[in-house]
Amino acid sequence: MSRYDIAIIGTGPAGISAAITAKIRNKEIILLGSSDISAKLSKAHRIDNYPGLSQISGADFAEKLKAQLSDLGIEITQKQVSAVYAMGEYFSLQAGEDMIEASSVIVASGVVQGKALPGEDKYLGRGVSYCATCDARLYKGKTVAVLGYSNEAPEEAEFLSEIVEKVIYVPMGKELPEERENIEIVREKPAEIVGEKSVTALKTDKGVYEVSCVFVLRDAVMPDKLVPGVETDGAHIKVDLNMKTNLPGLFACGDIAGKPYQYVKAAGQGNVAALSAVTYLMEKQKNG
Amino acid sequence: MSRYDIAIIGTGPAGISAAITAKIRNKEIILLGSSDISAKLSKAHRIDNYPGLSQISGADFAEKLKAQLSDLGIEITQKQVSAVYAMGEYFSLQAGEDMIEASSVIVASGVVQGKALPGEDKYLGRGVSYCATCDARLYKGKTVAVLGYSNEAPEEAEFLSEIVEKVIYVPMGKELPEERENIEIVREKPAEIVGEKSVTALKTDKGVYEVSCVFVLRDAVMPDKLVPGVETDGAHIKVDLNMKTNLPGLFACGDIAGKPYQYVKAAGQGNVAALSAVTYLMEKQKNG
Repeated sequence: MSRYDIAIIGTGPAGISAAITAKIRNKEIILLGSSDISAKLSKAHRIDNYPGLSQISGADFAEKLKAQLSDLGIEITQKQVSAVYAMGEYFSLQAGEDMIEASSVIVASGVVQGKALPGEDKYLGRGVSYCATCDARLYKGKTVAVLGYSNEAPEEAEFLSEIVEKVIYVPMGKELPEERENIEIVREKPAEIVGEKSVTALKTDKGVYEVSCVFVLRDAVMPDKLVPGVETDGAHIKVDLNMKTNLPGLFACGDIAGKPYQYVKAAGQGNVAALSAVTYLMEKQKNG
Repeated sequence: MSRYDIAIIGTGPAGISAAITAKIRNKEIILLGSSDISAKLSKAHRIDNYPGLSQISGADFAEKLKAQLSDLGIEITQKQVSAVYAMGEYFSLQAGEDMIEASSVIVASGVVQGKALPGEDKYLGRGVSYCATCDARLYKGKTVAVLGYSNEAPEEAEFLSEIVEKVIYVPMGKELPEERENIEIVREKPAEIVGEKSVTALKTDKGVYEVSCVFVLRDAVMPDKLVPGVETDGAHIKVDLNMKTNLPGLFACGDIAGKPYQYVKAAGQGNVAALSAVTYLMEKQKNG
């Protein structure tokens, strides 16, 4: 398996900015995220304060970013990273069933809104999953629940329904999966994930549903779950002005690195994170 | 005299970004700098890593920024700020012969390359000046020296020559003032500014020139001279992730706030500085 110089997680303005600068500095990069660019960005009605792009729509901005990536020969690898492990000399990223190795990592995966559900932390990896693509196979023939926070959740639920016995879909946003015999829409408020050794049921404000897995599909993963050992401040990864975290070689930028949640702030931090990663790699090479 | 909510010093990407966001947040702002936008920016051959503007020339980028300012009704006040004084409840900015008052200040004036000359600090305000427009009148009928570091220096020397008796012009960049009878070009290396109560001469590596004033015309002023009392780290103002300095109500962003010297980093920090200033003003109003 080849090892990348820099793995960049997230395809919002922070991740894309990091990718652009890292690529220009001739690094071997992998940019992981959605090829639709950030769903949040694409849906922004109008951006008024991005210097150089006067009153641009989110969709137009996303198109410009896509074109710029294409100009530079940067591809987006459509995978969701569920965990980043610091291995000492390098990082190991779990992306679906694949493991990706990189000498340094830039986390630009956005910020999670809201708190974890009771039981979510406890059963993570034992019946709580953040990635349908990754874990669907484990629940063949079983009933699972999907908490659909993200824009991609309906699609992931449809995919799940092709593998598992039944999907209980709890819509947390506006979109719904298409009607299918084995998808049940439950418009209730999730209250708790319960289990024994592993998950046995999802409790809502109105009922209890026996399931083998609860897929919690948010736009982003809590940083301490994404990167075990990283220093956080609530939903944010702690960074310094160079976008360094407490883990050498791991950098964070954009919304996950703190407020304000602004496009140009994210892009600026992505640039800094990339240059800090370049410096880190240079020093590592010198000393190694 | 009216007091602005926010005075923004500098018209590079950091200052312009701060102005755009502050204006959108309905603040009364004054943006001080060059109406040509940053000279350094306009001369940049090509910018490859500004997200959203693929391979743009510095001149085109400057045009886009100018147009965006104009769209938002933001004017550039062409004045060089030579000092910012923290007065407690507000700030007082010396701009030529004018004093400008503002409740908060964003310093985005760029970074000074190189060190102060021997004697420069000692005689500042007593025969050392950073602003020809401001101080020319004081030297009517006298001989002065100009150390021409900045792109605007030749023009300022020409202006000076219309008021003073004679200008000794020491070119530190490529450009020269036009030939005039009372402008002498001296291609020597400045070594020291000497004086008694005030400046009496400029010493170079090859000679001594009797002058009443040495105009040191750099693109930027050292931060501790620009803002007495501000905490610095060499040529940089110390900031936190919110672009706050040690002086409440004073923010810094862009090159003056530290490396890397990158356009999108500057723009991102300008945005953060503006939002921090908005928060500062809000809290001040609440408590006041």
